[in-house]
Order: sequence, then structure tokens, then C-alpha cells
Amino acid sequence: MRIDQHEVSMVLKNILIKKGFNEADAALSADLLVQNSLDGIYSHGVNRFPRIVSYLDKGYIKPGNKPECIEAFGALEKWDGNLGMGNTNAKVCMDRAIELAKKYGIGCVALRNTNHWMRGGAYGLQAADSGCIGICWTNTQPNMPAWGAKDRRIGNNPLIMCLPKKDGHILVDAAMAQFSYGAIEAAKMAGKQLPVPGGYDSAGNISQDPAEIEKTWRVLPIGFWKGSGFSIAMDLIAACLSDGNSTYKVGCIGEDEYALSQVLIAIDLSKTIADSEALINEVLANVKESERINENAEILYPGEKEYQTRCDNIKNGIPVNDEVWNKILSL
Amino acid sequence: MRIDQHEVSMVLKNILIKKGFNEADAALSADLLVQNSLDGIYSHGVNRFPRIVSYLDKGYIKPGNKPECIEAFGALEKWDGNLGMGNTNAKVCMDRAIELAKKYGIGCVALRNTNHWMRGGAYGLQAADSGCIGICWTNTQPNMPAWGAKDRRIGNNPLIMCLPKKDGHILVDAAMAQFSYGAIEAAKMAGKQLPVPGGYDSAGNISQDPAEIEKTWRVLPIGFWKGSGFSIAMDLIAACLSDGNSTYKVGCIGEDEYALSQVLIAIDLSKTIADSEALINEVLANVKESERINENAEILYPGEKEYQTRCDNIKNGIPVNDEVWNKILSL
Repeated sequence: MRIDQHEVSMVLKNILIKKGFNEADAALSADLLVQNSLDGIYSHGVNRFPRIVSYLDKGYIKPGNKPECIEAFGALEKWDGNLGMGNTNAKVCMDRAIELAKKYGIGCVALRNTNHWMRGGAYGLQAADSGCIGICWTNTQPNMPAWGAKDRRIGNNPLIMCLPKKDGHILVDAAMAQFSYGAIEAAKMAGKQLPVPGGYDSAGNISQDPAEIEKTWRVLPIGFWKGSGFSIAMDLIAACLSDGNSTYKVGCIGEDEYALSQVLIAIDLSKTIADSEALINEVLANVKESERINENAEILYPGEKEYQTRCDNIKNGIPVNDEVWNKILSL
Repeated sequence: MRIDQHEVSMVLKNILIKKGFNEADAALSADLLVQNSLDGIYSHGVNRFPRIVSYLDKGYIKPGNKPECIEAFGALEKWDGNLGMGNTNAKVCMDRAIELAKKYGIGCVALRNTNHWMRGGAYGLQAADSGCIGICWTNTQPNMPAWGAKDRRIGNNPLIMCLPKKDGHILVDAAMAQFSYGAIEAAKMAGKQLPVPGGYDSAGNISQDPAEIEKTWRVLPIGFWKGSGFSIAMDLIAACLSDGNSTYKVGCIGEDEYALSQVLIAIDLSKTIADSEALINEVLANVKESERINENAEILYPGEKEYQTRCDNIKNGIPVNDEVWNKILSL
């Protein structure tokens, strides 16, 4: 089933209003979710909506609460999310980082006590829409073992880098785990192997078999010890700059993931270079002319697939799982 | 052979003076190289010195040239390295980023036309020594295939994140390729397999065999498509912010690697949290208490091994390869 983005947005918005959001916040939050689905990131768009509602019902997300600036140090600010909705909190804080970047060249907002931002790439794209480079990351609950460990004590902390480009920004939005739990479960349900190694089996060998990886939940950090290191560093930076929870503390709160720490950085690209478009296109053209590993291989720039999907979904509607959609309509 | 750090530093300094450096720059550059060897990063310390001298002799590195600020936008500045020595250029620019961070909370210097900085981690540690978080990266010559490609058109662009901690800062210093060329060559020479997959063999299969990977030089980006994406994004950010060379342009210049673009960011941690030490130690203690994958597994925090090596090398001298040391003494 494919549904027009505006219809999806309206349905989500009305449910959020029923759950205690004011009209403007409900519209913004619904729109951010729809944007993620438009880009093909369904797991962090409309499909996640029932879980958001359950978090609202449990009281983890406080619909009336707004993020607020706690301390300002010039181009660096510390904000508290007051456990408000994660995607609107991140949007407001990236807006502020962009304002700071327009004034100081670079701006950084550290945000504590916020909720799941859904798709970090959204805030990178937001910076790029304003002519800024966007760099941001979040910590998560403990969901990945550190290098050398079996049990999960670090987060998969996604890191986002985004640059503005006409006809589709450059966007990297990558968790520090090679695959999300959702991707591993989906591969198992489909009876497929993962395309590259994603974790360890019970014997301690690297595996592409999602069923084996599910037995250990020893998911693989990108670059093995490297992704483990980045996860720890990003967690500490976010927690120290926001004076908020580390992944460890988030894990202490309980099974569910909330009260996270995030870093949102914007850098005003328009100040430093007259024509970034020409430089970027020159680099991308060269990469795209690479010798392909096989006839069917595509060489895409980071964010290109999402941009293609967006163009298609704007025209033809967002693909929505029937079961999920019926569940949403019943909320 | 193990040699006291001060003796090594003096020898390197005197050669740099012979090659046209003034006394202060020679001392700083030699000291930075020695620091890298002290931390056990021998490939980017004393062992690299003969290649630095060859670049000086070829005229790629201009010993008299200093970096200069081209444009200032508040907390963001654009600098030109004027093809001066890479490690002193990066040091001066991180010093400036720290100054900006002390004033604005965060500071960013984008540097163009610089040379190989040797070990990016050095500038992260430098920020941490000043109570700042350090984040920096460089582009490189084209040395890694983009995801889906066979030929090398993107860089292995190392990304550094560092936080201050007593008794050894937290430091991640990771190239976007899983292994450096040097590490692959060393494993081949030693007749060893790589500890984890590092590239592709001639049949296009993922391989841990350094001899097979050397046949294709299809080295593996960390996280497969993820590291490929980060490499492209970091290259574009560095080139656009500095209005300098992209990896593509560096490759156009010739076989050797110079005239690079870099980004150096400092964030003043002392502003945002009263006791970062407590937060950091709590997180590290929890990670270190993880269940180990086997009896012999060590769980180290990022930068811990380098700190241990440093303590040993300060006491017992820097291990120096006889052949390399004799070559240096003949320069």
C-alpha cells in the first residue's frame, strides 16, 4: 500500500494531538517522521510510530515538554530536552546550532535528557538545507559489546555527516554497529544471509548468519576495535558536553531507551568557499567513474539512494505495511 | 635498540636544521615525531623520518614556510599551510582551535595546502592537554576504492576523537581503511594472516591474507559502505571548509602525497561539566568489567595501550630499528 505523504502526516499529527501535543509540535513531529519514510528509512519513520505511542503512554516521552538552553558559552550551548519528543528536540537544537553557525561560523548544541531522535540523518539534512555542514550524533542504550567483550555495554551511537548539494545532499548516517537489530531480524525472517559479516556465532566466529548472531547478540562494530572506540568516545563527548546520561547510565534507568545525550554541530559552508557545488560535483563525478567490481555494481554517493527514493515516494506515495498502517489507524 | 627520547629528538632536530628549519620549528617538529614513537606509533614517528627528509629534498615540504590565517569568521577560521611541515602546521592550527574554543566554547580551523601530519592523534592529545575535546581529520591521496569500486579513488582519511582524562587521555585515531598499507606489508613479511578481514583477493572475496590483498589493493573500508561514505564526506568537508584540495585533486598532483586539506576542532570541556573525570571513569570502569570473549582478552579503553607504551618508552627508551637509525644518522 502506498499512501500520499500528506495523508500520512495528517493521520500521525492527529494521533499526537490526542496524546497531548499542541498542534504545531504535532505537525512538526509527524512531518519529521514522514520525511524519514519519504527517504526510504521506513524503520525510523512511519513504521516506528506505534512504538512512539507506547513510549508516550508509558510516560517516557512528555508531550508538553520543550527543550531549553541551560548555559550558553558563545558558539557552544548546553540544552536540556526535558524528556520531550526526541525528533522535535533534535530539530530545535539543530536549528539553534545553525543560528550559532551563521553568527560564529560554527555552532554546537549539546542536548541531554532527550528521547530517540528517530533518524539522525534528518538533522544533517536540516543543516544542509540551510547551507551548513551538519555533524551530529547520539548515544543509545547499551546494545553492542566493546571490543574484546561478550556482553553489551556500549551503544551503536550513529554518527551523521552531511553537506549541502543541489539535487540531493551528501549524507552519511551510520551506526557504529554494522547492522541494526531490525536489519538482522529482517534477514532472519526472510531466510537470508547478511551481505557482509554482522556479528559472532556461539563458537565465537565472525558470522553472516542472522540466526546465529541472534543467539549471541555479539553484533559487530564497524571496523572491529575502531567502531568500538568511536562508540565510547562519542558517548563520552555527548554525556560530558551536555552533562547528561552516558550509555551506561541510560542502561541503568531500565530496559527501554530514553533520557539520551546528543551533540549537534553546524558549520556555515557559505563563508569558506565561493562554489562548493563545483568542488563536490568534481569529486563525485570522479568517484562515480570508478571501475566497478561487477557489471551490476552501483557506485552511489552517500545519500544518493535516499534522494532517489524520496523523489519516487513524493510522486507515488510512501510504501506502508498494511498491518502497521491498520495499527496506526486504530490508535 | 632502545634510545632515550631526548637523544632521538636532538638527532632529528639537528638534521631538520641542516635541511633549512629554524631552531624552534626543528625542535617542535622533532618533538612531535618523538611523541608518536613514545606512544608506540613507530610508523608515524621516528621510522618515517627518512621519508620526510626525502620530501624535503624533493621540495614538497617547504621548511621555511609557516601556516597563516586567510579568513576568520569568529569561531571558524580558514588557514593556508603554504606547504610547510605537516606536523608543525597541524600543531599551530590546533593551538588556534583551542584558543577559539577558550573564547567561543568551540573552535574550528580548516587548513589547506599542508603536508602529512604524521599521526593525527597527536593533535587530539594536544587539545586534551588543554582541557578540550579534540576532533580532527585529514584527507589523503587516493588509496582506497569507494564501495562498489575496484580502483582507488578515495582516501583512508583518519578521524580522531580525544577527551581529556588524568593518567592517559581517551583517544581514537582511526583511518577509514581497516589496515594501513604498512600493516598489510608487515603481516605479509611476517608470514601472518591479518587478525580480521582487511581487503579483497583477486576472485573478489573478502580476505585476511595480506599477500592476496596486495595483489588487488582493494583494501576494506571500516564498516564496508559506511567507511567509504565517511571517507567521501570527510574529504569534502575538509576541502570545502579550507577551499583546498580534495583527495581527487591530491591524486592529480602526482604519485606523492602533499598539499592536503584538514579540519581541526576543539571544544572546551571545562565549560560544560564540573567533573568530567568522574563521568568518564564511571563509564570506563563499566566497560572494563565486561565479560571477556576469552581468558586472554584485554578490554582497553581507546588510547590506553598507547598510554601504557608511552610510560614504558619514557622509562626504557624508544625502540628504534637499527637499520632505520643508521640511515637517520647518515642524513
